Amino acid sequence: MSSPNADLISIYEKNKASSSSPALATCKALMDILETDNSATYAEFVAKLQKVIETFESIEPLIEVQSISEIFLRFITLTASEYQSIDEMRKALKLRGNLFLDKVVNCTQKIVKYGHPFIYEGSNILVHSYSPVVLETFLFVKKLGKRFCVYVTKSAPDNSGEIMYNKLKAHGIQCSLILDAAIGHFIEKVDMVMVGADGVVENGGIINKIGTYPLALCAKAFNKPLYVLAESYKFIRHYPLNQADIPQPIRGSDKRIRRKSGTVDESGPLVDYTPPNYITLLHTDLGTLTTAAVSDVLIQLYL
Amino acid sequence: MSSPNADLISIYEKNKASSSSPALATCKALMDILETDNSATYAEFVAKLQKVIETFESIEPLIEVQSISEIFLRFITLTASEYQSIDEMRKALKLRGNLFLDKVVNCTQKIVKYGHPFIYEGSNILVHSYSPVVLETFLFVKKLGKRFCVYVTKSAPDNSGEIMYNKLKAHGIQCSLILDAAIGHFIEKVDMVMVGADGVVENGGIINKIGTYPLALCAKAFNKPLYVLAESYKFIRHYPLNQADIPQPIRGSDKRIRRKSGTVDESGPLVDYTPPNYITLLHTDLGTLTTAAVSDVLIQLYL
Repeated sequence: MSSPNADLISIYEKNKASSSSPALATCKALMDILETDNSATYAEFVAKLQKVIETFESIEPLIEVQSISEIFLRFITLTASEYQSIDEMRKALKLRGNLFLDKVVNCTQKIVKYGHPFIYEGSNILVHSYSPVVLETFLFVKKLGKRFCVYVTKSAPDNSGEIMYNKLKAHGIQCSLILDAAIGHFIEKVDMVMVGADGVVENGGIINKIGTYPLALCAKAFNKPLYVLAESYKFIRHYPLNQADIPQPIRGSDKRIRRKSGTVDESGPLVDYTPPNYITLLHTDLGTLTTAAVSDVLIQLYL
Repeated sequence: MSSPNADLISIYEKNKASSSSPALATCKALMDILETDNSATYAEFVAKLQKVIETFESIEPLIEVQSISEIFLRFITLTASEYQSIDEMRKALKLRGNLFLDKVVNCTQKIVKYGHPFIYEGSNILVHSYSPVVLETFLFVKKLGKRFCVYVTKSAPDNSGEIMYNKLKAHGIQCSLILDAAIGHFIEKVDMVMVGADGVVENGGIINKIGTYPLALCAKAFNKPLYVLAESYKFIRHYPLNQADIPQPIRGSDKRIRRKSGTVDESGPLVDYTPPNYITLLHTDLGTLTTAAVSDVLIQLYL
């Protein structure tokens, strides 16, 4: 018989194969767990779920997995008292889970809707690393027939910028791959900077692939707008005071990259924190937000 | 019979093998040319020298080669009218050339003398790429028995930071190799930034390995001092207004690096320009200068 952990891993991996993002995979896997659950009490159910979530987080140590799980768990703890029996609660949870799943699926589409008008005809855009939602936005703008030019940083240590570059090129979007160190040269050529985010923190700052912060500093020095495209489920209740203050489980998102690349200096972090004063606007599935609005959203979500 | 160009190349390469820097090699090679010169008139001599300098610049397209040659030529054009015959002028030129050669040889030593007191016990220093004079300063400070810690950027595309890292390590200096993109993380840990320079321009700004400018922006954002260690023969009469304004022959300094690395995006530059407002002090063989003092030195040299 396989261990319970191995079961969980197989559930997660199965869902990951059919999902476009780790957040979606986590959500689907949690629904699968709910489907087969036979806990007799509320407490047993929550304890089980918490163990499941811990396992998922260890498989994929990403902010979005952590955050999606937290929202899912919050659904239960906030509404448990409304139901008479555990079966009734499970039924209600399934219904709400499916609604949430739909929301997560449509996130990218909504962000594209809010973000695309900011890319105007003839724009030059600097992007950092690979971000699926930034890519989707570009593809949508391309379909509208607008011409624009993208500069993509190579983004050491895993050179994920190359993925972005190759995908853009395959879709016929004019783009160049530039060195991480060359941002100081190219920032004066571009009209805006667009990045994704691993996580959005309480003050509206973002935690993202290492190199985002120097890029934000360059953008500020040249008065170029910096737009962040991020799903609202990436909003997390953390308030880092400086780079060293990024909590350990979040820094854990490094592990995935570390595994891929052998040449990295082990002492270096692979995410950095960009304070809100460097961010012009956040395009999210809830609309285009200022950085100050992030805390309002978090309050609505968790309080 | 070999072509005159091949002769020049062999003279340069011979001197390069015995010199610690391209500037010194150029200076020695020019002295060799002077030694064997038999021009009959002043005009012939200057024309010959100009052709020689062009060849040297094409072999080693570096700012220092260009600058040293210009200073050497300036010696002649400024003093030619003082001498009665071409032989007398050649003799005087040899004398002055040897004095200049001595100066160039002792440059590093003087910079170390002026720069080392800025590294205090327990400092953390961020350096970009490989710079021989920065390395010499560190070795001197190490000899004095001070403890300090150095963070070296890897510096794509040729990863020249690895050379710096290995040399520091070989001398027992505590150091870490960091990603170019990680400067935003490490800047808050360090006490100062120290870089070399390919060239120092009229306003006191520097042209240096790509990545220096983002590093300078980070240093400014965190109010950390940025010290530049540069030989005075790297002072050049250029006044770039922005990144795109770095003159072509200087961008040519890229060629040497390009040859070494095959993976570089050909469209990207390999030097960038750091404006003077980001530089705290310049440690040169003439003393520790503010950026404003550079133009004074240039006026003394060329007017």
